[in-house]
Amino acid sequence: MSDKTQATQPLKFADIDEWHYETDVAVVGYGGAGSCAAIEAADAGARVTIFELLSAAGGSTALSSAEIYMGGDGGTRVQAAVGHQDTDQAMIDYLAACAGPQADLDKITAYVQGSPAHFDWLVEQGVPFKDSEYKERAIMALTDDCLLYTGSEKAWPFNTFADPCPRGHNLEVEGDNGGPLFMKVIQEAVAKRDIEARFDCRALTLIQNQDGEVCGLRIREDMQEKNVRAHRGVILSAGGFVMNEAMVKKYAPSLLKCSVPIGNSGDTGSGILMGMGVGGAAINMHEGFVSVPYYPPASLTYGVFINAQGQRFINEDCYHGRVGAYVLQQRGRGVYLVLSVDDYGDYETVSYLGATVAGTGETIEELAAELKLPEGQLEQTLATYNQHAADGADPLFHKSADWLKVLKPPYVALDVTPGNGAFFPYFTLGGLDTKPSGEVLTPEGNVIPGLYAAGRTACGVPRRGAGYNSGISVGDATFTGRMAGKAAATRTATH
Amino acid sequence: MSDKTQATQPLKFADIDEWHYETDVAVVGYGGAGSCAAIEAADAGARVTIFELLSAAGGSTALSSAEIYMGGDGGTRVQAAVGHQDTDQAMIDYLAACAGPQADLDKITAYVQGSPAHFDWLVEQGVPFKDSEYKERAIMALTDDCLLYTGSEKAWPFNTFADPCPRGHNLEVEGDNGGPLFMKVIQEAVAKRDIEARFDCRALTLIQNQDGEVCGLRIREDMQEKNVRAHRGVILSAGGFVMNEAMVKKYAPSLLKCSVPIGNSGDTGSGILMGMGVGGAAINMHEGFVSVPYYPPASLTYGVFINAQGQRFINEDCYHGRVGAYVLQQRGRGVYLVLSVDDYGDYETVSYLGATVAGTGETIEELAAELKLPEGQLEQTLATYNQHAADGADPLFHKSADWLKVLKPPYVALDVTPGNGAFFPYFTLGGLDTKPSGEVLTPEGNVIPGLYAAGRTACGVPRRGAGYNSGISVGDATFTGRMAGKAAATRTATH
Repeated sequence: MSDKTQATQPLKFADIDEWHYETDVAVVGYGGAGSCAAIEAADAGARVTIFELLSAAGGSTALSSAEIYMGGDGGTRVQAAVGHQDTDQAMIDYLAACAGPQADLDKITAYVQGSPAHFDWLVEQGVPFKDSEYKERAIMALTDDCLLYTGSEKAWPFNTFADPCPRGHNLEVEGDNGGPLFMKVIQEAVAKRDIEARFDCRALTLIQNQDGEVCGLRIREDMQEKNVRAHRGVILSAGGFVMNEAMVKKYAPSLLKCSVPIGNSGDTGSGILMGMGVGGAAINMHEGFVSVPYYPPASLTYGVFINAQGQRFINEDCYHGRVGAYVLQQRGRGVYLVLSVDDYGDYETVSYLGATVAGTGETIEELAAELKLPEGQLEQTLATYNQHAADGADPLFHKSADWLKVLKPPYVALDVTPGNGAFFPYFTLGGLDTKPSGEVLTPEGNVIPGLYAAGRTACGVPRRGAGYNSGISVGDATFTGRMAGKAAATRTATH
Repeated sequence: MSDKTQATQPLKFADIDEWHYETDVAVVGYGGAGSCAAIEAADAGARVTIFELLSAAGGSTALSSAEIYMGGDGGTRVQAAVGHQDTDQAMIDYLAACAGPQADLDKITAYVQGSPAHFDWLVEQGVPFKDSEYKERAIMALTDDCLLYTGSEKAWPFNTFADPCPRGHNLEVEGDNGGPLFMKVIQEAVAKRDIEARFDCRALTLIQNQDGEVCGLRIREDMQEKNVRAHRGVILSAGGFVMNEAMVKKYAPSLLKCSVPIGNSGDTGSGILMGMGVGGAAINMHEGFVSVPYYPPASLTYGVFINAQGQRFINEDCYHGRVGAYVLQQRGRGVYLVLSVDDYGDYETVSYLGATVAGTGETIEELAAELKLPEGQLEQTLATYNQHAADGADPLFHKSADWLKVLKPPYVALDVTPGNGAFFPYFTLGGLDTKPSGEVLTPEGNVIPGLYAAGRTACGVPRRGAGYNSGISVGDATFTGRMAGKAAATRTATH
């Protein structure tokens, strides 16, 4: 067999003369999406085999905080226990606002309506959630408390579309260990089923019959290319493409202004490419999550972001990923977070940001001069901000009164100009277009029989950096994994 | 044969039992790209057949002003005659800045280096250019004068990357009639060759052999599906997808905030879809040109654009398409062009904008109140602007001193909020990834043998709304058409 097998060049079913493995449902990638897909497929009565590139399960889910985003009518057990009343409508409206013009309302609706049951299913698998709330403004809970705001729910303009409700569910574990714990628990759930997991297997390309049906895939294992027959379906849950620099440059080059790609080393886009090879549409490929992790400490939220024109451009109480998206849009050289030194707090010990001090000043004039901003601009911007903050209002960007405070000297400005050293992690948000069932669609909207995608390999509920929130990727991966597992297991193949 | 033939489902060569037409090079679409492709292919000795969906040639080129963007080392005859010295480096640097992170430097370099010869080739075909310059700030020349600035060459930040030089070449014809004249002339050039042009033919899908080579296509003509054998290659020059609303919604939904799709009725994405169907990568699919045509009258350039925060956000002397891209990015409800009534001039008779008056005022305070802007913001913004304008400087957005003038009462504000009635024409900028030769590439960068794309069906030199300029689409279409025609005609097929 050729060494040149490429993801986008499917093999023909008729050309395969030996099947090395036979299964009903072949799952590519053993992360959050793949594990949940495998469980559901097995529970629906299918033989299931997982093929994982690396030597262990985990995927990018294991690297994440795994704050799973759930809520909706009736709420989850935790939402109810701590007294938050959520509704499907509020959650749908919020997620639709997050996704903006790219929103897939069918997918959002399925996700929301299935959300309380998803919580229960996770608990059944052994995922532990404590009936408690974490009330700080944080990127992640470092305690074992559960429920927290993980996006821009309380911030403008999202709070004009839906009543805010916290929906991030942190696992019951101390520290930033939700992802590893989630994968440990879910692997145990996989192990309880008759599911085969093969490691160190690189999925190369799909195998398709003359009617366009996906019938299996080719993998490389032990230096050998092998053919896998999947009688009911193949599920691509192999992550995104953030680790494939050439692909990022081709599809989402704006992200290369950021500093660190976030993902598993397997996030090379191979799943997306395999899907494209059999005619799947890859959509939203230009979009990514970009973070400017300026909190903790939460007190930095009292500051104001300033561009090279000395203008504010965002309500600083929104989610750090939304700030990241807008920071990338600013023109000219220089983006700063201007603070009262009083609010600088324990920045140097607790922050992930790594931004250097761009300037300080006993007066605004002094700071503005150090930052080389156009004369008078910072002075005007801060005078306006302070005057409004004193009244508890922000008529420009509607920052919540909770985070409005008159900035007082001495001042400090952190340099959050992309490329100047601050930490700008990023990952991609594009993937295969799918139905809520996980069935992969062509650009014309037809289903490719036998092919499913889940997690970051698909383009799911999260669609925009400017409307991202934590918990939605693992939420989407685990939920869409389940949907794809169910759908694949119950499909009647025509061959 | 099935009625369900879909663009993304190629037919198998082995399944074709009858060839209704045989040619060397089949060209899909008879617009600017297709006509130039056909001429070059014929001149290289190939039999050529053009298949056009509509009953006449033209494509979107015929609907355009056809200000062809050309320049580079030595300049064109017109640049030289009117005394502009251009260089390859300046033109490459400018076009790279226009395309931003999406720039394809190989393609830009080929375009620039081939540009003076392209001018000569067009003249040989009979395209008339007068050795004169049009010096007004305009979207198009309405006289028969030739050379004009058609982008943001003189505007910040582009003027920091390259010395400005005008490169838009308007045809020698009065009124906005460049496109129709261009297509008339080029059709005459086609007619001089032994090129067959078939009208009312809908290209349905490609025909591919077992090695992945494109060998022809299926068309519908006279209510019948017919197979076309193309011995050397198929050139897809069928325009973009702006007229396919479902496809715009899937790939470039932000554009749907605009008002009027600009294009030929054949711009349904069929060429892009056919290419995707045989494994071609569609890239940059989210991008589009968006115009806020606020000039003519040029005097509106003296005004300032204001967002819902009462902030300026752009240098108003840049290209109207760049303004469009930034207008779409503003947050909150309300984008206005604030003017001295003195500069309003003959807006109502000469403008394409169609924006209504949102407010007027004898004082800034009065205008700000009518616009319901946050208190004091417009006052501050205009005080700063006026103070700088008096000094001939714009330290915020570096608007040229030529367009800086202290704004004086009475004032008027035009409503350029998207959706409030102003004319926001748009078209798409995504397409098939190609080499400078026009060869179509897979997502992994491999050539699909026998397949070429040109003009808007490919993703060419223009890549961003925020860096678009007039003349680059027809420039790219005619140039890449020629490259594809040459390459296809000289390819040695393996079958």
